[in-house]
Amino acid sequence: MSYQKKILRVNLSSKQITTEDLPMDLAKQYIGGRGLASKILYDEIDPTIDALSPKNKLIFSTGPLTGTNAPTGGRYMVITKGPLTGTIASSNSGGFFGAKFKNTGYDLIIFEGKADAPCYLYLDDEKSELRDASHVWGKDVYETTDILLKEAPDRAKVACIGQAGERLSLMAAIMNDKGRAAGRTGVGAVMGSKNLKAVVVSGKKKVLIEDKEAFTTAVKQRIKMLKENGVTGQGLPALGTKVLDKIINDSGLYPTFNFQEAVFENTDEVSGEALVEKQYLIKNVACFACPIACGRLVELPTGLKGEGPEYETGWAFGANCGVKDLNAITQANFLCNQYGLDTISVGATIAAAMELYQKGYIKKEELDKGPELKFGNSEAIVYYTKKIALREGIGDKLALGSYRFAESYGHPEFSMTVKKQEIPAYDPRGVQGHGLGYATNNRGGCHVRSYLISPEIVGMPEKLDPQELNGKPEWVKIFQDLTGVIDSAGLCLFTSFALGAGDYKDLINADTGFNYTEEELMKVGERIWNLERMFNLKAGFTAVDDTLPDRLLNDPVPSGPNKGHVHRLPELLPTYYKLRGWDEKGVPLDDKIKELGI
Amino acid sequence: MSYQKKILRVNLSSKQITTEDLPMDLAKQYIGGRGLASKILYDEIDPTIDALSPKNKLIFSTGPLTGTNAPTGGRYMVITKGPLTGTIASSNSGGFFGAKFKNTGYDLIIFEGKADAPCYLYLDDEKSELRDASHVWGKDVYETTDILLKEAPDRAKVACIGQAGERLSLMAAIMNDKGRAAGRTGVGAVMGSKNLKAVVVSGKKKVLIEDKEAFTTAVKQRIKMLKENGVTGQGLPALGTKVLDKIINDSGLYPTFNFQEAVFENTDEVSGEALVEKQYLIKNVACFACPIACGRLVELPTGLKGEGPEYETGWAFGANCGVKDLNAITQANFLCNQYGLDTISVGATIAAAMELYQKGYIKKEELDKGPELKFGNSEAIVYYTKKIALREGIGDKLALGSYRFAESYGHPEFSMTVKKQEIPAYDPRGVQGHGLGYATNNRGGCHVRSYLISPEIVGMPEKLDPQELNGKPEWVKIFQDLTGVIDSAGLCLFTSFALGAGDYKDLINADTGFNYTEEELMKVGERIWNLERMFNLKAGFTAVDDTLPDRLLNDPVPSGPNKGHVHRLPELLPTYYKLRGWDEKGVPLDDKIKELGI
Ligand code: SF4
Ligand code: SF4
Repeated sequence: MSYQKKILRVNLSSKQITTEDLPMDLAKQYIGGRGLASKILYDEIDPTIDALSPKNKLIFSTGPLTGTNAPTGGRYMVITKGPLTGTIASSNSGGFFGAKFKNTGYDLIIFEGKADAPCYLYLDDEKSELRDASHVWGKDVYETTDILLKEAPDRAKVACIGQAGERLSLMAAIMNDKGRAAGRTGVGAVMGSKNLKAVVVSGKKKVLIEDKEAFTTAVKQRIKMLKENGVTGQGLPALGTKVLDKIINDSGLYPTFNFQEAVFENTDEVSGEALVEKQYLIKNVACFACPIACGRLVELPTGLKGEGPEYETGWAFGANCGVKDLNAITQANFLCNQYGLDTISVGATIAAAMELYQKGYIKKEELDKGPELKFGNSEAIVYYTKKIALREGIGDKLALGSYRFAESYGHPEFSMTVKKQEIPAYDPRGVQGHGLGYATNNRGGCHVRSYLISPEIVGMPEKLDPQELNGKPEWVKIFQDLTGVIDSAGLCLFTSFALGAGDYKDLINADTGFNYTEEELMKVGERIWNLERMFNLKAGFTAVDDTLPDRLLNDPVPSGPNKGHVHRLPELLPTYYKLRGWDEKGVPLDDKIKELGI
Repeated sequence: MSYQKKILRVNLSSKQITTEDLPMDLAKQYIGGRGLASKILYDEIDPTIDALSPKNKLIFSTGPLTGTNAPTGGRYMVITKGPLTGTIASSNSGGFFGAKFKNTGYDLIIFEGKADAPCYLYLDDEKSELRDASHVWGKDVYETTDILLKEAPDRAKVACIGQAGERLSLMAAIMNDKGRAAGRTGVGAVMGSKNLKAVVVSGKKKVLIEDKEAFTTAVKQRIKMLKENGVTGQGLPALGTKVLDKIINDSGLYPTFNFQEAVFENTDEVSGEALVEKQYLIKNVACFACPIACGRLVELPTGLKGEGPEYETGWAFGANCGVKDLNAITQANFLCNQYGLDTISVGATIAAAMELYQKGYIKKEELDKGPELKFGNSEAIVYYTKKIALREGIGDKLALGSYRFAESYGHPEFSMTVKKQEIPAYDPRGVQGHGLGYATNNRGGCHVRSYLISPEIVGMPEKLDPQELNGKPEWVKIFQDLTGVIDSAGLCLFTSFALGAGDYKDLINADTGFNYTEEELMKVGERIWNLERMFNLKAGFTAVDDTLPDRLLNDPVPSGPNKGHVHRLPELLPTYYKLRGWDEKGVPLDDKIKELGI
């Protein structure tokens, strides 16, 4: 069947590497990927520990569909306690690393402890070694990847951190295949805190399928559905995720000037269309086994090349910072890839700093004669991204994210975060369901756990009124649970524009032989959600943390289609808790825990 | 003595290469470099020809001090009929090419005709060859230089054109040592029109000095003077030419928004000081034998590296385009180096286009969905520089310079040019003498033939009132004549902040044995100036062309220290003509011609 049924456990302190059998009962309960690794983390660490201490563990995890030819079946996840949020963290990344990782013959790697000197893990289907990494410590993601590839067999793949992870930036990402990121919640800093520079994987161990024939049929059908869908068959292939710029701006949801406004007048200059029209786009790129190919290989007039920008990235450095220079936005994106940083958090942190500066809280002297932190300053986004990456000057403090930064000036209200993580490119005041998703997300401000933009704006699977409250908690719950299934199976969330629970079920069953019903599968998703919730509760989070920035709850949108609206979280949250089987403090009731068998 | 006494004549049509003796009588009359080559051009071509026809000639010329250890003794000049202006053209460039060129055993190379296919000249002290250049045609300056260096002995030097020259942009430069430019009047297009991609020089032929002891003494003294001078010993070494940004802006001379204003509010963000403070500067770089080292090796946050920006370049893409993003300005500079373009003309042409666009003469559709041509748009300067280099879209027309571009819209008045060449970074309305220099310059709008900024603003050799008219024609004449001497001897103009005619005389005499008196030397300068003037008159220029853009003559400066002033050219020009021994139409009188022996 589709698991390799092996876990590699790497104790970085003692340098001991051991192999364990994958607990198949837990695999059935949590599928793999995000779910199974979260369960392991939950069982093995105390949620109150400091995320950057050796007591934290870092798990690289594939799902049963990773490495198969299921559409987008190349994903892996990184699970740990996140240093930016203090919550459980799980970051999903594409590219080619995940599939190759599975070919090593392991489903998961658990890193424990802390190495006494920089090292990297080399893993293939015959051996696993902790190797010295002093020659790449201090080097960026591109250089590190190139150097380590030379020390490995052909077709090896690398996931690593850049300087940002080494220097414990709380926005540090883990980068694989150079341009793909396990980006959010600062997972790169955990890797840095362990002196683990990289994971290099190679190997040829095949991923076996339980029912090959049924699987092949299901794969063909799913690819057809993806091709026929307006978003996955047309929008994303044509313009990548940046197909969204105009849609979101026209809907009055495009946060501008650090969420002070919700419409950006220069969207035409920075949109996905502009990326094509300005001839920056060279070609689409796809992750392993992906028929969608939403990735963009981009070349700037100066010859700088790389992947990006995604919609979220373009927004974070663009509208949110008031910048309309697509060349500068893309440079900031490239720098994040190069140094290993989460683009959303970095862009949003610079935006918050711009508001603090323009309102007089940051003094000019603090900029050390760097470019002025003013909205619209194209130079500033490039400049301070590098400062953050290297933690130089004011970048040292910015590297802790917008919450800690704004708080250090006594004004955390300028940080547009949930649980200290920057919320992405959709103003919740214009999408009530999506906003509820932000507030209740187990890894803080993030859009990929319940992407209600799909029904509320795009109209998939059906069109909902974005200002309507009725039914939204139900939608949020379904999306959150289904996303857990997708993340745990090893697929890309973008498939969900075209596929529903039943479609995933067929793929997963043919692959694993687990014979889930649709209901059981959704129950797995619910189990994962509740497990993550319990981790966070143990870590000290309470219902008070299920909230949005004051600005979004109290200040009406000043103009555009959503003029006058605020986010109505207090009207939504109790229903959501109830629906989840949680008490009014957001704590899962015993019945629910028993029902889910956590 | 200090000449190699040989001319290489290369007929590109017939592929014949011949050697001639340097006419030493003419060498005495014109020194070398710009003077001697201008005399040869004047004698050999019909000034009315099309500059891009095979009938034009292209002369690479060194001076007697080129290749010696006289301070800045590494310069060469390119002399031809300039396609941008239609005037005689002579562009002086530094770096290391000039000195190495002299080591081939030749003082001058004269290119004639047109090759039937792309070729390059390889020249050393033993052989000269026209070689196939099809493998580098279409390649940029950096690639071309690297490839051709591999085909030559160690320590060879390359001067070449990029795509701009190949595609006959009238703003194309000839680039040597990658980052140094014989930049103005479109000399690169002449090279392109001849299918001549590059000149590669190598060789060890020493430059002999007439009176070694006197020379060594003179060199030592001159270096001391340069070190002790405030500009050449402190300002230029510390900040490069960008030492000027603040000085010129504070003096209200810093043309902003295509000369609509004369003060730029964001000068602090783009100044030479900012280049250091933002840590873009890696180190100073010097040309051959130069104790000043005004060059700047710069690295941007994205890792892009190169030479620049100079003051003029920073201004052209910066204040003149309303752009305050030093990262973008430097990128535009790098693109000019890479593709072989004159930064001043390109920046000023984009500025003119911005004014035309904002005033509604250029329609949005013409931009082909490129960035909007609005003042302040950092993306636009980078984007359209590349479009100009490759002559793509609206870049095809922009590549002809601002005059032809603005004229094609029926509004040449938005082109800030003299004789169709863009005037540099000093508003003439605030420096009457300097403006007279612009108007009477033999190669059109250019600041390096009579840099009256030195006395009028910096106060060297003495401080003049910039609004005073009295005495200015005299100063302009002296500066123009002395500059001819410096350009012809093979030195850098920047030495003139510290050195006077007598100082040059000692160097030149010890070097050549010509025993010029100071008066004779200035007479040489005057001879060169008049010869160039006669070339232009024969080419069809008249007194009508000795003018400034209407805006500078009629629209008072709207604000700043020079508020209310216009340039008072009509009050200056008759005196200047008279002083020059020219009639009221600006034609040299017979007496003057006889006196100078032209
Ligand atoms: S949809 Fe995009 S991110 Fe997802 S697997 Fe395909 S290429 Fe990768
Ligand atoms: S002063 Fe500057 S341009 Fe002149 S020779 Fe020296 S380094 Fe070169």
